Amino acid sequence: MINKDNFANNSKYLCSNNDYENSSIVIIGAPMDYTVSFKPGTRFGPQAIRAASLSLEAYSVYMNRNLLDKKYCDLGDLTLPFGNVEKSLKIIGDAAKEIIQDDKKPLFLGGEHLISAPIIKEVNNKYGEELVVLHFDAHTDLRTKYFDEENSHATVIRKAAKFLNNKNIYHFGIRSGIKEEYEFAWKNTNMFLFEVIEPIKMVLNDIKNKPIYITFDIDVLDPAYAPGTGTPEPGGITSKEALEAIHILKDMNVVGMDLVEVSPDYDHSGITSILAAKLIREAILSFL
Amino acid sequence: MINKDNFANNSKYLCSNNDYENSSIVIIGAPMDYTVSFKPGTRFGPQAIRAASLSLEAYSVYMNRNLLDKKYCDLGDLTLPFGNVEKSLKIIGDAAKEIIQDDKKPLFLGGEHLISAPIIKEVNNKYGEELVVLHFDAHTDLRTKYFDEENSHATVIRKAAKFLNNKNIYHFGIRSGIKEEYEFAWKNTNMFLFEVIEPIKMVLNDIKNKPIYITFDIDVLDPAYAPGTGTPEPGGITSKEALEAIHILKDMNVVGMDLVEVSPDYDHSGITSILAAKLIREAILSFL
Amino acid sequence: MINKDNFANNSKYLCSNNDYENSSIVIIGAPMDYTVSFKPGTRFGPQAIRAASLSLEAYSVYMNRNLLDKKYCDLGDLTLPFGNVEKSLKIIGDAAKEIIQDDKKPLFLGGEHLISAPIIKEVNNKYGEELVVLHFDAHTDLRTKYFDEENSHATVIRKAAKFLNNKNIYHFGIRSGIKEEYEFAWKNTNMFLFEVIEPIKMVLNDIKNKPIYITFDIDVLDPAYAPGTGTPEPGGITSKEALEAIHILKDMNVVGMDLVEVSPDYDHSGITSILAAKLIREAILSFL
Amino acid sequence: MINKDNFANNSKYLCSNNDYENSSIVIIGAPMDYTVSFKPGTRFGPQAIRAASLSLEAYSVYMNRNLLDKKYCDLGDLTLPFGNVEKSLKIIGDAAKEIIQDDKKPLFLGGEHLISAPIIKEVNNKYGEELVVLHFDAHTDLRTKYFDEENSHATVIRKAAKFLNNKNIYHFGIRSGIKEEYEFAWKNTNMFLFEVIEPIKMVLNDIKNKPIYITFDIDVLDPAYAPGTGTPEPGGITSKEALEAIHILKDMNVVGMDLVEVSPDYDHSGITSILAAKLIREAILSFL
Amino acid sequence: MINKDNFANNSKYLCSNNDYENSSIVIIGAPMDYTVSFKPGTRFGPQAIRAASLSLEAYSVYMNRNLLDKKYCDLGDLTLPFGNVEKSLKIIGDAAKEIIQDDKKPLFLGGEHLISAPIIKEVNNKYGEELVVLHFDAHTDLRTKYFDEENSHATVIRKAAKFLNNKNIYHFGIRSGIKEEYEFAWKNTNMFLFEVIEPIKMVLNDIKNKPIYITFDIDVLDPAYAPGTGTPEPGGITSKEALEAIHILKDMNVVGMDLVEVSPDYDHSGITSILAAKLIREAILSFL
Amino acid sequence: MINKDNFANNSKYLCSNNDYENSSIVIIGAPMDYTVSFKPGTRFGPQAIRAASLSLEAYSVYMNRNLLDKKYCDLGDLTLPFGNVEKSLKIIGDAAKEIIQDDKKPLFLGGEHLISAPIIKEVNNKYGEELVVLHFDAHTDLRTKYFDEENSHATVIRKAAKFLNNKNIYHFGIRSGIKEEYEFAWKNTNMFLFEVIEPIKMVLNDIKNKPIYITFDIDVLDPAYAPGTGTPEPGGITSKEALEAIHILKDMNVVGMDLVEVSPDYDHSGITSILAAKLIREAILSFL
Repeated sequence: MINKDNFANNSKYLCSNNDYENSSIVIIGAPMDYTVSFKPGTRFGPQAIRAASLSLEAYSVYMNRNLLDKKYCDLGDLTLPFGNVEKSLKIIGDAAKEIIQDDKKPLFLGGEHLISAPIIKEVNNKYGEELVVLHFDAHTDLRTKYFDEENSHATVIRKAAKFLNNKNIYHFGIRSGIKEEYEFAWKNTNMFLFEVIEPIKMVLNDIKNKPIYITFDIDVLDPAYAPGTGTPEPGGITSKEALEAIHILKDMNVVGMDLVEVSPDYDHSGITSILAAKLIREAILSFL
Repeated sequence: MINKDNFANNSKYLCSNNDYENSSIVIIGAPMDYTVSFKPGTRFGPQAIRAASLSLEAYSVYMNRNLLDKKYCDLGDLTLPFGNVEKSLKIIGDAAKEIIQDDKKPLFLGGEHLISAPIIKEVNNKYGEELVVLHFDAHTDLRTKYFDEENSHATVIRKAAKFLNNKNIYHFGIRSGIKEEYEFAWKNTNMFLFEVIEPIKMVLNDIKNKPIYITFDIDVLDPAYAPGTGTPEPGGITSKEALEAIHILKDMNVVGMDLVEVSPDYDHSGITSILAAKLIREAILSFL
Repeated sequence: MINKDNFANNSKYLCSNNDYENSSIVIIGAPMDYTVSFKPGTRFGPQAIRAASLSLEAYSVYMNRNLLDKKYCDLGDLTLPFGNVEKSLKIIGDAAKEIIQDDKKPLFLGGEHLISAPIIKEVNNKYGEELVVLHFDAHTDLRTKYFDEENSHATVIRKAAKFLNNKNIYHFGIRSGIKEEYEFAWKNTNMFLFEVIEPIKMVLNDIKNKPIYITFDIDVLDPAYAPGTGTPEPGGITSKEALEAIHILKDMNVVGMDLVEVSPDYDHSGITSILAAKLIREAILSFL
Repeated sequence: MINKDNFANNSKYLCSNNDYENSSIVIIGAPMDYTVSFKPGTRFGPQAIRAASLSLEAYSVYMNRNLLDKKYCDLGDLTLPFGNVEKSLKIIGDAAKEIIQDDKKPLFLGGEHLISAPIIKEVNNKYGEELVVLHFDAHTDLRTKYFDEENSHATVIRKAAKFLNNKNIYHFGIRSGIKEEYEFAWKNTNMFLFEVIEPIKMVLNDIKNKPIYITFDIDVLDPAYAPGTGTPEPGGITSKEALEAIHILKDMNVVGMDLVEVSPDYDHSGITSILAAKLIREAILSFL
Repeated sequence: MINKDNFANNSKYLCSNNDYENSSIVIIGAPMDYTVSFKPGTRFGPQAIRAASLSLEAYSVYMNRNLLDKKYCDLGDLTLPFGNVEKSLKIIGDAAKEIIQDDKKPLFLGGEHLISAPIIKEVNNKYGEELVVLHFDAHTDLRTKYFDEENSHATVIRKAAKFLNNKNIYHFGIRSGIKEEYEFAWKNTNMFLFEVIEPIKMVLNDIKNKPIYITFDIDVLDPAYAPGTGTPEPGGITSKEALEAIHILKDMNVVGMDLVEVSPDYDHSGITSILAAKLIREAILSFL
Repeated sequence: MINKDNFANNSKYLCSNNDYENSSIVIIGAPMDYTVSFKPGTRFGPQAIRAASLSLEAYSVYMNRNLLDKKYCDLGDLTLPFGNVEKSLKIIGDAAKEIIQDDKKPLFLGGEHLISAPIIKEVNNKYGEELVVLHFDAHTDLRTKYFDEENSHATVIRKAAKFLNNKNIYHFGIRSGIKEEYEFAWKNTNMFLFEVIEPIKMVLNDIKNKPIYITFDIDVLDPAYAPGTGTPEPGGITSKEALEAIHILKDMNVVGMDLVEVSPDYDHSGITSILAAKLIREAILSFL
């Protein structure tokens, strides 16, 4: 008989297992990219992040922690009906719901940012008005409509704002949006422009005893660090800052996370995927 | 005053004008790519084809004809609501309708293949059961549903088959599909596998006095000749064969055409765009 | 509980299962690329072929057969000690041996061409002097040494010739080698230059009742059709010819096969991987 | 009749109009790249910057200003006789002259840096010895000859220095040149090595009441931020610093500007073009 | 002392020596690309062809000849004043003149097609009206002016036609030009459209006792086979046909040759460079 | 006779000569990449660094020094038996030994990091326990085995640690490794995480009178600055910091150096090669 131990598993996130039952964290890919306004291609993001993760070590010297000490499974990519936004969002939301009901933490890999909407809705259903949302992004994503559509990667946080306690929404690294979006934020949420490190430190006390959901758009990084994304926006943070942001949140009560908008077709050297993979590793070790 | 003659127009198809009124052919880009099942990116196809056209001559030695002797305008790309399939198809159909009502010939640049559905519907409304559809493609595109969706690049010809006179549908160069699609075609339409030249010659007599609509999926070409497309399928025709196919149809009564599925992100040397641009030139000179 | 049916398996060859016991064909990736003399990178070949296979249909209109009617598993990639040629070849040979002993057919995805040596050795151990080897390649691969090394992608067929019945070795599509290699072939084996179709037809009668092993180097294709390989050699066959070669061998007694030298880093549009994936599909349906 | 409002204008800079008469700023592309010593390709720079601009917002949260409140037209690219340096420079100079005579501000998109020479000459003709030139670049561009040629991208500022008041020339971010160039600068102009922010702040008082022309070579950015250029020079500034440089100059009396050396063929992810597009937006809002 | 035999020479064409005196063929790179109208970048062509040549064998099974039996040197690339067309052409012409005066055969690697003009002039000076020019190209290159310039890659053969015996000019594979160019050719030279093999066979008898110069523009190949060129033109010949063209001319009295328009920046997989390198090898073995 | 002064030398490092005898520094390429665990391709690193060097100036304004004042030769790339690790390391070591015995300083261009092992061994043979090794890298490279192999790019510093005085090993910029590697370092060597500038300043006094060998893995840079490498690790240093590191070491007693892991196939814009070339220039000027 063939010895299966001789074979590598190339298709799952580094050190993940297949044991849903005994996992506390559940990785899922959501390969949706239909509503994007500039460059599509994020549907291949989850696969690229997983492949890149295999070049990383399980041990992090930043945290002095090891992935082998964590229990998480990677279920692979959801099968979505391409082009059907409503059904796709429902499938994503249903998956999130199951995970949350099973008392596990969802860790979604995008896909476009719109996937966050149904996930946050399910997280909110469980945690209610205490729920804090940390939104890392170059873009406000606070439109009510975009090209006349309510379902768009540019409306995702505004959709979430309808049911969230807006005082608990924090935006970091933002540098692009229309005036109306900023006006909404100045009035209702907590908007931090351009930077992430100082702002997080500033609010750490306010959020530390609350359940936290993190939605991380890779374009909060400068395009130099994350060229592989659909709407790169110059003037962003560095990879060191992104890593530090994860580390500052060490041992906070994070109940779920998504990392979105990695687009491998624009990531010719693969540096965006490997950055995303490392951020996921540090997130798992730091607070998931 | 600045002399505007010193400036080049980089954004329209070679030798096109802006005079809709006096044009007999109307070029329109339909940058839709939401329902594709493999690699998206065809939304940038029309722009790439236009840019590539500028490296061509207006004169064709194949036809001994010159674009400067033809009257056609290029309206640019339709503004579409990204992610909303229904609305996008309606906008495309409405544009086609106007052009046909104004007794002009539509020449659409895709975008994904699904854009052909509303265009063919409008052409059919005008020409009825006499209408012949010549379908160049690697894929049958004859599914009833795809990933549970009726609106898909894989269903486009089946959608059209609902209202077309199926005896007048001709498929050329086909080499990929599921068994049910071929069974539908063997029974209802005219399916020619793998090749285009001999089949066209064979049917030329049957179609020569009828109004003809041509839907040309660039992936009928072998990936060596057209790598820049979402679902390349090896075993296809050569560029010489594609050009000859256009030339065989010389002076036929072609009432409209689309060329779809050019995806510049996978076309690193630009050879797919330039091939598409040349096919468009020859089509204009040959039968439009 | 989460429904696992909602998730796609992105990491295995199209329609393969995980049931080794009940499979008659076994797909294995051998990600070795250390001895190549020009451009390395074939270690990522197997993964790229699998990913590309997902854009194909299970049904082949060429064969009127369907992958769903075949039983084959995909074990993934062997874990190899990078840089250690001897150990790597042993691991590959051991895997081949197990499969053959279990009365299954090995289908290896390379990796560099040297991986064929230990596989052919095991096949030869079972089938002996009756064994026919069909070698599709641009290069003779008949050196005794290369850069003073016996273990090299350029020596693989010569290594095999030591134990094979040389009268049963057939080379197709060859167009590059040193004079000594051709002299060896003219004297001992059956060498067909440049072409594949006519030569195969010519020898079909001689091989049809014998056990056949096929070693297929993707660079037998012209670089236009298969740019993603380490030592592309202009003047090769087309994708239609490669497919036809597979089809001519329909229902022959093929007992094993490898397809090698796909190098995704030089395959920017992915057309080499998809061609390899399609050749594998047709091979499974035609004779495996 | 077709509704032209349904169509997008893909070929002009974001929010530009076609109304030369009523514009105070005039954007022109100068697609010249014949004298470059390393990698050509900047002739496609203007088109790439325009295409990239369409992914930006009209509103800038940095400035709290909106492009819709500015009046500027984009005339497209000048038609130049490829290979003829003298004639090309004359055409560029003539265009600049017209714009300046019409009391508008020229905003040229390169093309290679040599295009700045005739533009600065015309600006100097109008503003004379008061004119300040702010030169952002990795390279001194102060040679008298380059490969025995006086007309070269490496001589452009030296050519301008012949007629400019050299005390009003300021170089920022410089890190490459031959010793003679630095000696010229130390003696005649104001040379700031490596950095841009502190130097600008230092000289702000000296220039604030004078007419200012800005020539911005994208390679002042580190290659990580602007890989798409012909002679990338490591050790440069970040995108945040480049944006800040624009912002520091808020409401200064800038009478013209060029942004040069964007080379799309080396800008695989498009991050250089989008950075250039954003710098142009901020420049229009900040001081043009 | 270090043993220099341990080091590889990566920078010269395969098996070339440094011994100008005893060489009968002299390889020179002419890295000029200033007058091209579409995509520049051919200045890196000679280096890329040389690097690619190192993956080829010295022995050709097509010819049963070996490069080691030929005496040729590779002088490297000429140093040209970028942007100065006149001086560059003079430098190229002077080099050609020396080689011809020393009774050696020049083998130039372009660079753009305009480099052929001064070379052909020198060859013509030696061989006079007997001289045959075989012109392989997709483009007529017979303009009198291009963008108002007489020195252009599009005028090169017309420039040569001024001093050549036009009855001895043969064009092969042509498929792009303006009507006036064809009219000139129909009247004065020998124009063969689209194809190369049959035409060469047809004229072989007429040219076999005359001195022959070959100017080979890589874009005579279809873009599928030679994507790495500035103005690819679909509908061209295959690599097999290009090789056969060289082989048909076996042992003809070829007195010089150039191969131009290889542009590595558009040759992402390197297949154009390797094709050019192989054509050069076959040319050396066949008739140089 | 042809004038050889008209030709450029494209294949050697900027301003290098061929005069081994009179050189104090000897540049050698070691194109080995067989043991790498992720992406191979560094064998083309030395050639790419040399080609990129030609776009730099000989004069450095950082150092106010000029390459023309230094005497160094570039011997080209060693010919290595691909796939044979032991023999390749021996050839590299032998070359290093000769250079050191001839009282010259070796400057090796990799190739993978494993090439440093035999070089450091020879340097150690000469300088003994006084020898300081400065190790710039993202990875610890301190494993005893990797995939069961002792010879691996991941074991190189541990191999060296066997014969070096471990107290004299200094690691800078490290951010990836397994726990056992860090434990070894904390106990035996001097490990500085993440940063390079402050650590070097801290140890400058300790090393300033000792012979120093520098092994510089390009992946110490963040992938934004050096995407062209096999195992990019986010969170690294900037190009300014790398340059400053070289400058801080000005006029130290550096007796040899290597720069490894530049992989041109992942360096699509060439920014990694040009950074490596500039670091080499500054190293030559600063301390070699």
